[in-house]
Formats: sequence, C-alpha cells, structure tokens
Amino acid sequence: GTSYHVTSDEQAVRQRGSEILKYGIPDRGPMVSYYANHVLSYDQAKRTPLWVAEHIQPHHVKGSADRKRTNFNPDPAVPTMFSATNDDYRKSGWSRGHMAPAADNKHDQIAMEETFYLTNILPQDMDNNSGFWNRLELYCRDLTKRFTDVRIISGPLWLPREQNGKNMVTYQVLGKNNVAVPTHLFKVILVEGASGGSHQALSAFVVPNEPISKHQQLKDFLVPLEHLEKVVGFRFHPQLNRALLNNLCKVDECRLASADDLELYYIRKNLGAASSTKQLDSVWKELERKKLKPDKQLMDMYNKKRQQLLQNAERKSEL
Amino acid sequence: GTSYHVTSDEQAVRQRGSEILKYGIPDRGPMVSYYANHVLSYDQAKRTPLWVAEHIQPHHVKGSADRKRTNFNPDPAVPTMFSATNDDYRKSGWSRGHMAPAADNKHDQIAMEETFYLTNILPQDMDNNSGFWNRLELYCRDLTKRFTDVRIISGPLWLPREQNGKNMVTYQVLGKNNVAVPTHLFKVILVEGASGGSHQALSAFVVPNEPISKHQQLKDFLVPLEHLEKVVGFRFHPQLNRALLNNLCKVDECRLASADDLELYYIRKNLGAASSTKQLDSVWKELERKKLKPDKQLMDMYNKKRQQLLQNAERKSEL
Ligand SMILES: [Mg+2]
Ligand SMILES: [Mg+2]
Repeated sequence: GTSYHVTSDEQAVRQRGSEILKYGIPDRGPMVSYYANHVLSYDQAKRTPLWVAEHIQPHHVKGSADRKRTNFNPDPAVPTMFSATNDDYRKSGWSRGHMAPAADNKHDQIAMEETFYLTNILPQDMDNNSGFWNRLELYCRDLTKRFTDVRIISGPLWLPREQNGKNMVTYQVLGKNNVAVPTHLFKVILVEGASGGSHQALSAFVVPNEPISKHQQLKDFLVPLEHLEKVVGFRFHPQLNRALLNNLCKVDECRLASADDLELYYIRKNLGAASSTKQLDSVWKELERKKLKPDKQLMDMYNKKRQQLLQNAERKSEL
Repeated sequence: GTSYHVTSDEQAVRQRGSEILKYGIPDRGPMVSYYANHVLSYDQAKRTPLWVAEHIQPHHVKGSADRKRTNFNPDPAVPTMFSATNDDYRKSGWSRGHMAPAADNKHDQIAMEETFYLTNILPQDMDNNSGFWNRLELYCRDLTKRFTDVRIISGPLWLPREQNGKNMVTYQVLGKNNVAVPTHLFKVILVEGASGGSHQALSAFVVPNEPISKHQQLKDFLVPLEHLEKVVGFRFHPQLNRALLNNLCKVDECRLASADDLELYYIRKNLGAASSTKQLDSVWKELERKKLKPDKQLMDMYNKKRQQLLQNAERKSEL
C-alpha cells in the first residue's frame, strides 16, 4: 500500500518520489508470507513474527503428521542477516514457542514442518508455553467441534509499564541476532457457525509471557480488540463486519481444560504409547508425583494395558 | 511484497492463504507515504517514522519558505488510533525532532509544512536536536555545494545494552499514545557527482539520542551500512550497485561546523534580522554570554547594521 499527499498535484508528488528514491524503496522483505497451512508477517528487525494467521477445522487437528520427525530451522525464505537461529535460543532460558501450533497441522506433514521454521517462533517462557498457552491452544482446537470455521491470529507484544513515574518498555534480546523476547502474547479468535453471518463471534486475549497461575481463567486476559490494535499498530480482519460480531466468551464461555485435566490427558496419551511394563509403571508413578487422582476409566486403562504388555512379553519369550 | 512457500504447489498455497485470511490481511497502513518533497514509512505501533528519505539539491536549501508560518500537527493521513499528538510530547522533556529537516525545504512552503506532520517527527533529546544533529543537517545541506545529488535517509533505532549479563532494550514511551523514544538515530548519506556512476559515495551514522559533547567528531559515529541494516531490519537503496561506492568520509572528510561556528552563524543571522537597536544589542550581548569572540567581519556587520537602524529611526521620527 502507498499513500500520496496531494496538497500538491499527485503526478508531481509521484514524480518527485521516484527521484528521492532513485535507488529503490528501503526493502523490509515480504509483508506477507504464505505457507502450506499458515500465513504470517515476519519482523526482520525483531526476528519474530509480527502476526501468524491460521484457519482450523476438524480435519486439521486429526491425522498422522508427527512432530518428532521435524526440527526447528531458520526459514530458508529469510536472508541470513535478518534470521534467528537455533543458537540464539540455546541456553537462553527461553523456549521456542510456536505461534501456529504444530498440533493444528496433524493432517499434513509438510504443513507441520513449516510451523517449525523460526519465522513462526518466538522466545516464550517455558512454563507459559507448556502450560497456560498450551491449554489455550487446546481450547482453540476444541472449538472446531462446535464451529465450522475457527480463525486464529497470534503474535507478540512489547508493552510498557510504569517505572519511577515514566512509562518504560523493557525487553531482552537473545543471541547474536538479538531475537526480541516479547513481554506479552496475543491471540485473536474468530469463529463462525455453519450458517455464517450473524453466527460469528470473536475475542482477543493478551497473556503475559511468564508462568501463569493454575487459578487464572482465560477470561482474565480478555481485551477489547481495538485496544490490542492500538498497541500492535494494525487492524485485524479488516473486511469483517464488526457490527454483527458476538463476544466469543459470551457464546462459548472460554473455559480452558484445567491444568490437572491436561496432565491427565498427557498421562493417558503416554500410557497408550508405553511399549513395556517398565515404561507403563514409570508413567503411572507420575500420577503420584504430581498428586493427581486417576478416575475409574484411567485405572481400567492402566490395568488392561498392563495385562496386554505382559501377554505380549510372554508370547515373545515363547518364540 | 509477498512470499510463497512452494514446498507444496503454489496455486494450492495461494488458495489456502485466501481461506485463512478470508476477512483480509491484517492492515498496517501504507508501507510508503509520499509527500511534496520527502518520502517515509510510518510505524503505526511506535508512532514514529521507520525511515524518512530526502533528495536535496542547492535550490531546496535556499528560498523563502518560513518555518514560523508552520505548526507541528498530526498527519491527516494517519488514523487517530495510530497517530501521535502534540499532547503526547508536551511536558515530556523530549523535543519534536524532524527527520526530514524543515530547512531542507526552503524552496516550497507546502513541502516545509509537510515536514511538520508528526509522521516525520520523533522524540529527540533537545540538546541533540539543536546541537549535534542540527550540525549534521547543516553538513548535509553543505554537501549540495560539492555534489549534484545528496540523498539522505534518516530514522530511529532501539539498541540493546548489557545489563546484568543480559542484552536489554529499554526505552520510554510518551503520552496517551505511547510514542516510542528511540535510543539512537541514524542517517545514511548518499552523494553523487555530476558525472554519476563511480562518483558515488555513501556513509552511515548512528548517533545516541542524547546530548553529544562538542568534542565528538562525526566520524566517531560511522557504522558499516550492513550493521545498520541488520539492526533496522531493512536494506537501504536496494537498487544501488555497492561495488562502485566510495566512503563519503574519505571523499569529503565528514567534518561538521564546530559548535562555536554554529553559534556565530545564528548570531550573524539574528543580527541581520534585527529591526531595532535594542534587538541588535541584545543579540550582541549573547556573544559575551556564550564567551564567543566576534571576528572583524562580524564587528563590521554589527557597526554597519547599528548605523543603519539609527538612520532609519531618525528618518521615521522626521516623518
Ligand atoms: Mg507452544
Ligand atoms: Mg531538528
């Protein structure tokens, strides 16, 4: 986009502009980058995305794509001088946080791999990444059960806070490439029902890039979309008719799975994947360690799986 | 500009992109804004320019355009929610620093007025603005005597510094609109001679946004262009053949007028503009106050002007 000031005549301004910029407009790289299943704008100065957009439906969050087959890597589309590297993150104390989550791309191995490009990654507090933010991502995937289309735009924020009567922005930069650590992260969630139109709902959230207490609710991080826009410097979904928009948290409650439920979810997953009784029992001991109570369903699962593994072992020794 | 990742087929990626961004690409406003005699890219998040480009020739720096007839004003092209206001700067302790200087637009009142839009302004240390940076701007105008074309790109920087073993970026934001105060300012100066081509020279400077000692030389602030580019996140003059480029400070010495010379320059200007002997003598007293010694030329100028003003006064009283 360009803007012409036509206090003087437009033709003259344009002509003068091309003399001033005889050797080209300063080049910030592409404003928008398209991948198999996400779209983003990369900030070549901060070495993080500015925003990352997704659209998820039930078939995206199921499938066999495997994150264990992928690695974090610099995005080959970004010139080295403007790219983050894995070295920048190494031993920094900050994790590599996905904006478009890998698990939103289970339908397609390439789409999943592309979420591991460092253009989709920013320095995220480890506990935030595996805890609250992870639960927020699970909530987004869960929305695909209740709405036909879920659109999510995620990204970083650098917010000021008062220090000695002044408003100050302070943030760390990592490694040789000075990868900027955001103070906060945002997520704008837009859903629409099969009937579209008046069945649209949106909510915007701003979450500090730090450990979030188990007792915090997603609703605690709700912000008016316009407030977020004023801070990030851009407008979301510019072609959306906001007059018809519902508040997602009024339509869908915005309740995250509890941290305990999430632990149980992972333990269930790991019980399922265990390939020896030793592995199975070590997963089971995590329950005690984390002071979680298994329900009847989980007990049954454990017992059944244990019997199975013992039978398998017997069969093997017979061969 | 856009970039397509064509691990998958390009048509499919483009198609998927338009589903993901069904309601439009997040809108950051124009990437480039053209004015009568400068071009800039505005940062809607920081409420400062990202860069401002100029092209000056002898006729731009002479003329009758008058900065006293102009005021700082929000740029009418910027939506209110993304604009700085004069109130943000008021009582902040920071001055409104021009990137394209008013005095580079003496040929045209409209061009000069447009440099007072807050899109061309950033929070600048007062002493830096009237001192070192002002002398740097004078140097740029002086270059028009020796080169046919002088192209300048100026803008803000936010640089990290070490604190407790971490690299930290810290900056203040001003007023209700959180106008970001840069830690440093940059200027990239490109000159070319009448014969063009191999007679091009460029230097890049990074100056802290703070008072600069009288004893500092412009050369002390030289940086390799690529270092500056890595920090700002964009490339300058992308269509310039850098292989042919000389170093401006080798070709032209990069010597600023001394701070004392600059004071004498302003006193000479004010002596010339004085319209009463009272005004004239108050300008003359500034010399003493600032411990500057007038040379013979200035003494003569003062004496001649004083005589003139006395004669004028006599003539008026005779009428
Ligand atoms: Mg994550
Ligand atoms: Mg100035």
